[in-house]
Amino acid sequence: MPSLTLAEIAALLHVPTPPGLGDRAMTGMATLAEAGPGDLSFLGSDAYLKQFAATKAGAVIVQKRVKLPRDGVHTPVFVVDDADLAVAKILEHFAPPVPRPPVGRHPSAFVAPSTSVGDGARIGFNVFVGDDCRIGSNVVLHPGVHVGANVDIGDDCELFPNVVLRERVRLGKRVVIHASSVVGTDGFGYRWDGTRHAKVPQIGTVVIEDDVEVGSCVCIDRAKFGTTRVGRGTKIDNLVQVAHNVVIGPHCIIVGQAGLAGSVTLGAGVVLGGQSALRDHITMGDGSMVAGCAGVAEDVDPKMIVSGLPALPHRQSLREQAALRRLPDLMAQVRKLQEELEQLKRSHT
Amino acid sequence: MPSLTLAEIAALLHVPTPPGLGDRAMTGMATLAEAGPGDLSFLGSDAYLKQFAATKAGAVIVQKRVKLPRDGVHTPVFVVDDADLAVAKILEHFAPPVPRPPVGRHPSAFVAPSTSVGDGARIGFNVFVGDDCRIGSNVVLHPGVHVGANVDIGDDCELFPNVVLRERVRLGKRVVIHASSVVGTDGFGYRWDGTRHAKVPQIGTVVIEDDVEVGSCVCIDRAKFGTTRVGRGTKIDNLVQVAHNVVIGPHCIIVGQAGLAGSVTLGAGVVLGGQSALRDHITMGDGSMVAGCAGVAEDVDPKMIVSGLPALPHRQSLREQAALRRLPDLMAQVRKLQEELEQLKRSHT
Amino acid sequence: MPSLTLAEIAALLHVPTPPGLGDRAMTGMATLAEAGPGDLSFLGSDAYLKQFAATKAGAVIVQKRVKLPRDGVHTPVFVVDDADLAVAKILEHFAPPVPRPPVGRHPSAFVAPSTSVGDGARIGFNVFVGDDCRIGSNVVLHPGVHVGANVDIGDDCELFPNVVLRERVRLGKRVVIHASSVVGTDGFGYRWDGTRHAKVPQIGTVVIEDDVEVGSCVCIDRAKFGTTRVGRGTKIDNLVQVAHNVVIGPHCIIVGQAGLAGSVTLGAGVVLGGQSALRDHITMGDGSMVAGCAGVAEDVDPKMIVSGLPALPHRQSLREQAALRRLPDLMAQVRKLQEELEQLKRSHT
Repeated sequence: MPSLTLAEIAALLHVPTPPGLGDRAMTGMATLAEAGPGDLSFLGSDAYLKQFAATKAGAVIVQKRVKLPRDGVHTPVFVVDDADLAVAKILEHFAPPVPRPPVGRHPSAFVAPSTSVGDGARIGFNVFVGDDCRIGSNVVLHPGVHVGANVDIGDDCELFPNVVLRERVRLGKRVVIHASSVVGTDGFGYRWDGTRHAKVPQIGTVVIEDDVEVGSCVCIDRAKFGTTRVGRGTKIDNLVQVAHNVVIGPHCIIVGQAGLAGSVTLGAGVVLGGQSALRDHITMGDGSMVAGCAGVAEDVDPKMIVSGLPALPHRQSLREQAALRRLPDLMAQVRKLQEELEQLKRSHT
Repeated sequence: MPSLTLAEIAALLHVPTPPGLGDRAMTGMATLAEAGPGDLSFLGSDAYLKQFAATKAGAVIVQKRVKLPRDGVHTPVFVVDDADLAVAKILEHFAPPVPRPPVGRHPSAFVAPSTSVGDGARIGFNVFVGDDCRIGSNVVLHPGVHVGANVDIGDDCELFPNVVLRERVRLGKRVVIHASSVVGTDGFGYRWDGTRHAKVPQIGTVVIEDDVEVGSCVCIDRAKFGTTRVGRGTKIDNLVQVAHNVVIGPHCIIVGQAGLAGSVTLGAGVVLGGQSALRDHITMGDGSMVAGCAGVAEDVDPKMIVSGLPALPHRQSLREQAALRRLPDLMAQVRKLQEELEQLKRSHT
Repeated sequence: MPSLTLAEIAALLHVPTPPGLGDRAMTGMATLAEAGPGDLSFLGSDAYLKQFAATKAGAVIVQKRVKLPRDGVHTPVFVVDDADLAVAKILEHFAPPVPRPPVGRHPSAFVAPSTSVGDGARIGFNVFVGDDCRIGSNVVLHPGVHVGANVDIGDDCELFPNVVLRERVRLGKRVVIHASSVVGTDGFGYRWDGTRHAKVPQIGTVVIEDDVEVGSCVCIDRAKFGTTRVGRGTKIDNLVQVAHNVVIGPHCIIVGQAGLAGSVTLGAGVVLGGQSALRDHITMGDGSMVAGCAGVAEDVDPKMIVSGLPALPHRQSLREQAALRRLPDLMAQVRKLQEELEQLKRSHT
């Protein structure tokens, strides 16, 4: 189990070591309520001061703006400017290794003879790899992964159990895809031919660039023709739908259950909130953001934030919502005006 | 095939046996329209009286408040106070057994030598169980299930095909997880470091308590640190997203496609409607409810019902919606008021 | 690789062959920006005229209404009335074959002895087929597919990797189900018995009729009793939830992440937009449509279009949204009216 002394933690966070306690060893992180004497914890806001007072944590990272009790604290603290960053640094040291198949190929796996496999690759239990694939160095294919024919997987990619890559998909380097996601399903395209929805063949592919991470149960469909593309460094949460011919720029963040309809284009650094939805052919400018649950039906300018259903510029959306809160009152006011005016007219005649 | 006589049905429902028909055997349940002479059916409201008149069902459970024709009925009936409860009781008797792998281990399955397996466990075709797991008694692992290292599965759990439990997840007793769900994916956490979204390690785990049932294609992510928790007796429908560090209380009901963002807390007996969404760090009090499609952005008090986007107390939401229905009319009224006032001012001067 | 000469393309589209270029061979389709000399491309609107001027495509299908430059074009064009239809026709010729397991049974697959398998069926790596199933002729079961006991799969069906069909499900002919979808999970039904949510047995099944196509990570639950049904020719996109006892008519289109709650009934040719949601027991008339993100809480008449949350007839929804856009202004107008009236009253007395 990984372990850090308080002196090591202080060094990592560039703060003083609690006097006399430099040798105390921490073996994990826990919330204030759950932490034991071997755990580091953290206190990010005044709201948790009660829990802090009662915690059994061996030491606590404290956000500078939190007002600690003046009469001292019962546990050593590390006061930091950015508690989130401090926690992220510590977690890197406590992260237990991910269990992986050993280097080589499990005897139950199938790898087509025409496929090339790089050095250091780990091909797990019951993995299937079709014809003419290129599997890079140090790639990890966890149990039950399916790789269709003619797929490229760059160096250092990791596919978790039961991921499906359909034929002709290409992954860059260091791409991570979590369990049970599917890349390369046919795009959803039909034409009514008078008697039935005739399938429009979906002959394109999917390219996922370097350093993308994709959650679980995500669907990224192949293009009608050409390429559905996920830009480098983009991160996609669970249960997201990426339809055919979507082009996602670099370093986007797409939160759980968001849906991108066909041919949507995202610029660089776009953020889509949870359960947000983008109509087909929408373009989102660089650095634009969509709030959770919003439904976007028009292009969004760079750096613009939109919210609501239908999505509007966020300030406008807030103003309309505030007005809607007062609408029942407004109706009463209008009724009153009508009555007063009526009265005035009667008295006037 | 299971079978019940009308006398047995009458006994189960605590109602009289149809005279002279106690030996008639029913072998299933069907809707009024689909039922044949061997089927029991049910009539829950007056809206289905026409279908009742035409049914070929061998017998019909009838909700007491339904007004049956005065001139008699052509099929034996069981009049009950609570038709839903009556149907549930009967279904238990007609339920065919779920096909399961035999007790023991299928030769194609992999179980790490360091893992312990309880008596009566059924480990199916192509199941993978990693190192140092504890598989309880009578656990059923259907084909293709993946169990990562250091996982605890309590007695009498059942995991349907292709379920993935990542490392260090813990299940209580009698937990049921339906096909293709994933428990223990990394939570979705990154920090922009100036050039890229740096991954925040997700070193926590997931605990699912006794008697939880989880639908298909559900994602329950591991905590950043500490525990993502699903309380005992909670039931989760298909395609639900449960993000890192969510804590769900006991006996909650979470309907299909709902989404719980990071660190959401649900009290006991909370109900989340289909496609509802909860912003991160929201707390829902005991017995509170979220209507389908609602988007919750603020804490919800115990027993409160909220609806709409953004979610509001349900009465307020209804009042605002009613006002919104009349808003186009209100605009016309205000225009008319303006004109009348204008006229009055002119006549007044 | 499939290839078409410009003469062949002209014949397919019923337009003239570009003079002197009938022998030029095209081997694929690409967007104007991505196309090379061996690619056919297409130009559907004036918005892409700049890309057209710069394209390296070997030939371009052009929608008739597009205004091509008068001084000629640098690449051969096929001017057509319906560019989408033309593209669909061409894609059928360029579609590369889907890699499939060979006819027969992979040695790693398990097929129960009591199951019958039709001529020409392809049973891939690690497929599981339970007892007493009927697998039709030419059925394709890709790697990792799970077929529970007593399942019927009609001729010419294709199930992509890791699809799960639970016991007693029935598929018609030519049904396609994409990777990781699950058919036949228990419907979500419980009764609070005073201490817990008691499970209501879900003893029904699922029938999917001829020519249905289902996307990836879709969940179609078995009926409480009777049948959850998907009508012939219906097409379902990814991540859709179809709850127990839903009845979907023929030739419906259900876009990604839509959710149909229990006992919803769709007529023929119904269209559900992406992320739309239908409350339980709703009936949608033939040819009705639900806009993306809409939440339907009441029955919808045939051919009616509804939108919004809650869903309203589309015109009404648009009118209310337009009014809502002007609501902040309306409030200002009412305040002004109040002041003017006040003034008038004062001057009047």
